[in-house]
Order: sequence, then structure tokens, then C-alpha cells
Amino acid sequence: MIYQLYYWPGIPGRGEFVRLALEDAGAEYEDVGRRAGADGGANAVSEFLHGGEIGHPHFAPPILKAGDLVVSHVANILQYLALRLDLVPADEASRAWANGLQLTLTDFVAEIHDTHHPIGVSLYYENQQAAAVQRAEGFVQERLPKFLDYFERVLATNGGNEAYLVGTAHSYVDLSLFQVVTGLRYAFPRAMSRLEPELPMLTALVDRVSQRPRVAAYLTSDRRLDFNESGIFRHYPELDR
Amino acid sequence: MIYQLYYWPGIPGRGEFVRLALEDAGAEYEDVGRRAGADGGANAVSEFLHGGEIGHPHFAPPILKAGDLVVSHVANILQYLALRLDLVPADEASRAWANGLQLTLTDFVAEIHDTHHPIGVSLYYENQQAAAVQRAEGFVQERLPKFLDYFERVLATNGGNEAYLVGTAHSYVDLSLFQVVTGLRYAFPRAMSRLEPELPMLTALVDRVSQRPRVAAYLTSDRRLDFNESGIFRHYPELDR
Repeated sequence: MIYQLYYWPGIPGRGEFVRLALEDAGAEYEDVGRRAGADGGANAVSEFLHGGEIGHPHFAPPILKAGDLVVSHVANILQYLALRLDLVPADEASRAWANGLQLTLTDFVAEIHDTHHPIGVSLYYENQQAAAVQRAEGFVQERLPKFLDYFERVLATNGGNEAYLVGTAHSYVDLSLFQVVTGLRYAFPRAMSRLEPELPMLTALVDRVSQRPRVAAYLTSDRRLDFNESGIFRHYPELDR
Repeated sequence: MIYQLYYWPGIPGRGEFVRLALEDAGAEYEDVGRRAGADGGANAVSEFLHGGEIGHPHFAPPILKAGDLVVSHVANILQYLALRLDLVPADEASRAWANGLQLTLTDFVAEIHDTHHPIGVSLYYENQQAAAVQRAEGFVQERLPKFLDYFERVLATNGGNEAYLVGTAHSYVDLSLFQVVTGLRYAFPRAMSRLEPELPMLTALVDRVSQRPRVAAYLTSDRRLDFNESGIFRHYPELDR
């Protein structure tokens, strides 16, 4: 099976959660949005999104095509892939727990995004900067520690398996948490350097994931996109006080 | 099986998406947050949330307990319940499509919530009203029609089965869309009365769902909580211009 990932070119964005699972598992995939061409593949993503080839319209990328099956939304795609790529235990309770954690990460990512876009996605950051400063202040003081403490607590209560979020082995949720923490270090370096000393299990998990051979190779490849100020995780110093 | 739903008392909130599926299917359940008692059951929800009885801590309700299995997040709970309550086709492609639609509704609900809380969940509405007016303006002009048009398009491209979002039969996603549209009519009556004439399939779906016998009985029972200004869908006239 060669998977096809449809996601906008130029930003790691939500597509990166899918890429990390595919890369970690050594799966074959085509990153359609990054096809060579004048538009960098964006047209192919846009056409697919609107349902031309597939019947069903999807609201937003990422979308994964796996043979005849088409799956959209990060948590949905990862749930589908994880069983096939051995990135989640097969029993129902573990899969439901993993999916619940992934959906908490989904909510966390949306809140991270909205620190720089509290008024509207179609407005430039510069036109909502004052509100962003206000929103980011509450985010850094309350929401960021609340989410990070939660994941630390999940590790601490995992029956002695503090290296993993789910059960006794590496899973796709570990990969997604790695991506979120890495993005937060990029976007909020001051806040993260203040908070991380109190989060030893979470930082150990991020280290462990970064050292997995295929992940390490991927992170230094040109397939890995740098964080930038068009994506979810943006470094605006005025939001990181 | 008697299901136990853990959700805060006093608001329909995200718990309502779960209630609608249980009610529509005629499933037996206890709404733990509404247990009689001085605190209205809130303590039982809070204790369960923090993992006392169940081992794993959860980030937020709703949480469903089904025997030994514990599932959190609306989309995760509904995915689990739907197979058992005959509220989704059993094949993998349909389930992935249904879950993707539900996750689009999840995102939509978060955006609806943030119209009245653009700066932070821990601040009162009155302390972020100016930003809320700005955010709601973009929501009503762009995001609301974009989401609603999307669901209308999903119905229009469903192979002639325009009464249903998924396949050829009623599903849990129809119930959730009913709840979102009903909430929007409460919160944004002016905007919705302007938009709905262009959304005939969506409004027909909402009518159809409201007339299902168990849903109709539920909606007039005291188990159904009214929308109010503590929930997701709040009617603030200044946000509905």
C-alpha cells in the first residue's frame, strides 16, 4: 500500500501529525501537496478536497487516501493508520483511550492556533494583534500548563509505564505529543523553558521519540518542514512573555 | 447494558450530543451529573474526571462508562456507541466518513463557543465582549455559512440520499447536526433565518430528526435541558447582527 497524503504545502500544520506516523512506521506515502509544479501541489489538494475524484467533499485537509478508502481529520486518519502500522494496541479499550488522548491534543492544537488568531482565521495577525496578546496571556498562564500537566499526569498514572501515553509500548499518540511539544518550544520558548523542569516524564517522552531511528532520520531530511509564521505554531515574541 | 454519562449539570453542552444518541436508540443510561443532591451531581463528575475510580485521568467531560470501558470526547463516545446502537453502517469506509463528519462538527462547535469567549474560557463574557463582537461578525459572515454550506453539499452529493449525511440511513451524525442547527437557531436567530432558505436539505434533515418518535418524546421531556447563557450556544443579540 502506498498512502497518499493531501495537505497544503509550505507548513508542517496538521499534516505533520500524519507524516510522523507514516515516517515512524516506515510506510510508503506520497505527499501530494508537495508534488513538483508551479503551485507546489496546492491545486491537487484543493481539487481532492472538493470531492472531484472521490464523491464526498471534505471540509479541510489533511486527507489520507488508502486505496479506495478516504479519511479526513488528523485523529480519524491516525486511528485508521495506527492499527495497520502497529502504532496502537489492538484491544478496544486501548484504542478508545488513545483516540481520546488524540482528541485532547486536537483541542490543544486549536487553542494554540487561536493564540495568534483569536478574532478570525481570515484576518491577518497584525490586524488582531492586541486581542492575540490578551489571549496568549491567558493561554500561557492557564491553558498551556493545564494541558501539559494533564499529559504529565497521564504518564505518571500509566501503571509504571511512564515512557508511554498508552499501555506498555510506543504509539501514535506519543508521536503527536512530540510534535505538539516541539512546536510549543518553537512558539513559546520562554514559557516552555519555565514549565518543562516540572514536566520530567513529558520531556523524557519527547527525547525518546526524537531518538527513534526513523524519526531521527526524518527530522534531518528535507521532507521535514520547519515551523514558520504561516503555521499553527508561530513564534511571536509578544505572545510569549 | 446501562450506560453512565458523566457531564456537568445545568447545560446541554457537549453532553447533549451523547444524550441524543442514547435517547434516539432507546438505550438505558444514567445521567450521573444530574443525580439528585446538593451539588446536582457535579462532584461525581469531577471525581470521575480525575481518574479516582478508573485509573486514567480524563481532560474534560463528557465521559461515557460502558461496563468496564471508559470513553471520553464526544466523537469518540459516539463512534463507540453508534456501532452498538445501530446508528452507523458497519463497514469501515462509512464509519471513517461518519467520524470525519463528526470531527468537522466538533471543530464547528468549538468555533461557535469561541464567538462568546474569544480571549479566554476563564474570563466572563462581559470582560471580552468587544472582542466577541468582532469575532462573531466574522463568524456570521464567513464561518457560519461556510460550515452550513458544507453540510448542505454533503447532503446534495450523497448519491440521491439527501435525507441522510451518511449512506442510506439515519446515523448519529444526523443527530449531532440536528443539535448544532437547533443551537444555532437559539444563539443566532437573525443569521439563521437569513441563511436557512438557501439550505433546504439541511433544514429538512433537522425536521426529520425532530420527528423521530423517541427524539420527539425526549425533546418535550424534563431530561432535555434548555439552551442557556452558560452553555456553548448563547443568545447575545449583539453577536447576531
